[in-house]
Amino acid sequence: MSDLHWKTSVTKIEPNKVSIRGYPVDKLMGKISFAQAIYLVLTGEMPSAEVGKLVDAIFVSSIDHGASPPSVLAARTVTSTGAELNAAIASGVLAISKYHGGAIEEAMNLFLDIAGRMEEEKKSETEAVREVMNEMREMGKRASGFGHRIHSEDPRTRKLFKLAQELGLAGKHIQIALAVEKSLKEMLGKSLPVNVDGAIAAVLCDLGFPPEIGNAFFIIARVPGLVAHIHEEKIRMRPMRKIHPQDFEYDGLEEREFE
Amino acid sequence: MSDLHWKTSVTKIEPNKVSIRGYPVDKLMGKISFAQAIYLVLTGEMPSAEVGKLVDAIFVSSIDHGASPPSVLAARTVTSTGAELNAAIASGVLAISKYHGGAIEEAMNLFLDIAGRMEEEKKSETEAVREVMNEMREMGKRASGFGHRIHSEDPRTRKLFKLAQELGLAGKHIQIALAVEKSLKEMLGKSLPVNVDGAIAAVLCDLGFPPEIGNAFFIIARVPGLVAHIHEEKIRMRPMRKIHPQDFEYDGLEEREFE
Amino acid sequence: MSDLHWKTSVTKIEPNKVSIRGYPVDKLMGKISFAQAIYLVLTGEMPSAEVGKLVDAIFVSSIDHGASPPSVLAARTVTSTGAELNAAIASGVLAISKYHGGAIEEAMNLFLDIAGRMEEEKKSETEAVREVMNEMREMGKRASGFGHRIHSEDPRTRKLFKLAQELGLAGKHIQIALAVEKSLKEMLGKSLPVNVDGAIAAVLCDLGFPPEIGNAFFIIARVPGLVAHIHEEKIRMRPMRKIHPQDFEYDGLEEREFE
Amino acid sequence: MSDLHWKTSVTKIEPNKVSIRGYPVDKLMGKISFAQAIYLVLTGEMPSAEVGKLVDAIFVSSIDHGASPPSVLAARTVTSTGAELNAAIASGVLAISKYHGGAIEEAMNLFLDIAGRMEEEKKSETEAVREVMNEMREMGKRASGFGHRIHSEDPRTRKLFKLAQELGLAGKHIQIALAVEKSLKEMLGKSLPVNVDGAIAAVLCDLGFPPEIGNAFFIIARVPGLVAHIHEEKIRMRPMRKIHPQDFEYDGLEEREFE
Repeated sequence: MSDLHWKTSVTKIEPNKVSIRGYPVDKLMGKISFAQAIYLVLTGEMPSAEVGKLVDAIFVSSIDHGASPPSVLAARTVTSTGAELNAAIASGVLAISKYHGGAIEEAMNLFLDIAGRMEEEKKSETEAVREVMNEMREMGKRASGFGHRIHSEDPRTRKLFKLAQELGLAGKHIQIALAVEKSLKEMLGKSLPVNVDGAIAAVLCDLGFPPEIGNAFFIIARVPGLVAHIHEEKIRMRPMRKIHPQDFEYDGLEEREFE
Repeated sequence: MSDLHWKTSVTKIEPNKVSIRGYPVDKLMGKISFAQAIYLVLTGEMPSAEVGKLVDAIFVSSIDHGASPPSVLAARTVTSTGAELNAAIASGVLAISKYHGGAIEEAMNLFLDIAGRMEEEKKSETEAVREVMNEMREMGKRASGFGHRIHSEDPRTRKLFKLAQELGLAGKHIQIALAVEKSLKEMLGKSLPVNVDGAIAAVLCDLGFPPEIGNAFFIIARVPGLVAHIHEEKIRMRPMRKIHPQDFEYDGLEEREFE
Repeated sequence: MSDLHWKTSVTKIEPNKVSIRGYPVDKLMGKISFAQAIYLVLTGEMPSAEVGKLVDAIFVSSIDHGASPPSVLAARTVTSTGAELNAAIASGVLAISKYHGGAIEEAMNLFLDIAGRMEEEKKSETEAVREVMNEMREMGKRASGFGHRIHSEDPRTRKLFKLAQELGLAGKHIQIALAVEKSLKEMLGKSLPVNVDGAIAAVLCDLGFPPEIGNAFFIIARVPGLVAHIHEEKIRMRPMRKIHPQDFEYDGLEEREFE
Repeated sequence: MSDLHWKTSVTKIEPNKVSIRGYPVDKLMGKISFAQAIYLVLTGEMPSAEVGKLVDAIFVSSIDHGASPPSVLAARTVTSTGAELNAAIASGVLAISKYHGGAIEEAMNLFLDIAGRMEEEKKSETEAVREVMNEMREMGKRASGFGHRIHSEDPRTRKLFKLAQELGLAGKHIQIALAVEKSLKEMLGKSLPVNVDGAIAAVLCDLGFPPEIGNAFFIIARVPGLVAHIHEEKIRMRPMRKIHPQDFEYDGLEEREFE
């Protein structure tokens, strides 16, 4: 044992045994979903089936958003130079930053700030929201997690909130998100509805996650989508093509129903 | 429409509608697991519930393997400099390469090669395995996906094969993997059992995945584990510490059972 | 010309002509040093021979600092997995962050803050330094660019300041750096001399560079050092070795003099 | 001393002393150029002033090639999301791969192959070139380092060869590169002149560099150019803009002469 000895609480490795947060991994395989395992490895606790379902829905909601996000364009650009899969994924991950995916952490901080004022300063939701919104306006900051370039009513947001409700997991942060949405409409005179980042932020707050790993949810969700684009770029496009950032069209499978 | 116009078949984006491989994403949320969505976005087809369960098990099996893999050490080293979450994840992904995670693609190519000789050249499994193993020996190449520094009998391998069997999804590539294991024992006089990479490779071949995205399964599985280590490094360790690559101990939760 | 048309002022490309900031590059080759070209591409202006020499000295000073910095350990760890050269360099660059290399930008902001108070508020250097140091103490912030784990008197710092003097390029920011050093000694009762990051910061301020590209100087300087370590790891070490972060020794060429 | 003890020959660190390949770094500052220091750290030997000048010219030649290369587009895309400088540089470096910058290593291998046949098999240059070109044709491979999308006569190539000549450093690999150029013209009936990658490859072979670090020269040269583009993107463009890969124009300084 050297003076550099250190400790970790994530996973214990013994010969012929791998225990994630106390659970032998082979006992988990076939019993829990990947989403539940992600919750477990991140928090240290096994989620209930309901929480697992909601976390699954978060990841499904953000698995891909077409070819226009900068993470996809960066990953395709790198792929196009003949780079390895891991390099292309890494470049996509590097593009998930402040203005792309980064809204989750910021929105979580916003909702927790409002919830904190309600609890500690005994303010009503309306008061706390108004107070924070006014402070942001004075500092020239805009609320993260609201409004979308393409979607005026994001189908993913409503579905996520509905699922949280049905699973008995909707809490005060979803309420706060909707109150901020209402307040923004009053202040700006136009609608800036909760977007999918804001919705995920509210649900993650209700589930008790700390804001610092909020963006990790977006990255974990989006890596498979990046892989799909990288693979398509590799097998369908010629190397070193000029990748137009918006002049593309979808030519995949027609809309279909899932039963 | 410019002369740079191009086409993509992954996801269709319309106002208030996001369709992944033909399915409106809000219709999938709450109905399919993240693992099923990953299968869908990668292959274009919706997996059955059974396939979804097996894919879930693959991801669960590889979500983390403690603090010693180079991807974790790279991610912790970068975290320790005060870097952003996305930079730390990216550096971990860059360490998932030929000798770490890369065995999946190579083992898939090995199993597909043997299966091809059985089908096209009407060889028996034993003949085809022996032929390929002899060729590899002559070229001084060792079989990827066999043997492990720590585990003489990897609990994840047996469980993955057992699940494939129970779900009715075990096919010839699992058979081939076991035949290679047997052949290695005869040739080398010592046991080099299928490791978790080899097991995942066999299952992915049985599920019909192309080898080029084999390593993507490892990367997708491991990113959440990397996030757990990055978060622990950030909240528990001091910046710029010297990170010993093996002198650490597990001090997390005691072993527990999952019911 | 589409509605995405945009403009750039770095380099003009015409058939058989490449002009960097207005200068045909083939006219520069053989006439200016790489360091001068770096200054040119970053600022848009050709440096004098003296400025070129000082910039050369900055890059030489930081080209390598042995195997212990996290950028080297990250790059070696990634190399050890069989990754490509570009992946290994990228992981090293990702480790050059807040606590490693990041001191340059922060120290530049500190020196510019002090210089600004001297100019705008007509304060003496002593007053401005004391004021800023007191504010930092109240906020619990420590001054970036001062003190070093290994070097109590960094030979690179004194040489850089001496060269700036000899070349007639030493200005007020070097004075300010030395005044901060003196003030730290008085406040803390122990010596925290300007380190090489602080010295580069002072010189870059005197040369008129904006702080936002301060860290770029460190990254540009260190990439060749990273390549040397990556190459050594590849040709001298076995893959997947455990890389101890400090238990290594230098076995290269003996100390020699340069004439 | 643990069983992980290892050795490195790049740089020796002692209190108040940093020795690069045997030379105390403060003794080098002000005396050698950054290019000479790069040569030193990579090879272990101090280059002559002539070699230093030629290496300077290599780096100057490749410092930037406008906004269209994928490394620039990837770095600008990542910058546009609000990412940190190190993340943007890393993504640019990840795009320097097989089809972009990667030609240097491949061309070096080609020239060394031909030189080897001349020396070991006592073949004439003409014979050796013809033999290798025929083998490549049969395998459907094209020669790396020849031809350019924009430049029919690359001004950088001729200048680099001319400088090597003037400095007394032109050797057989430059001859071989020109012989391959001639052979390609005869075989294809059209001109595919040595491009800047091929020219750098020939010069690096003449200087004795191993092919494995050929691409490092391109990466080292281009990082400052990437920084110039990243900085321009940050201060001049709005975040999350759609970055057109070719519809841009140069609006920088007019052409000017360097005296």
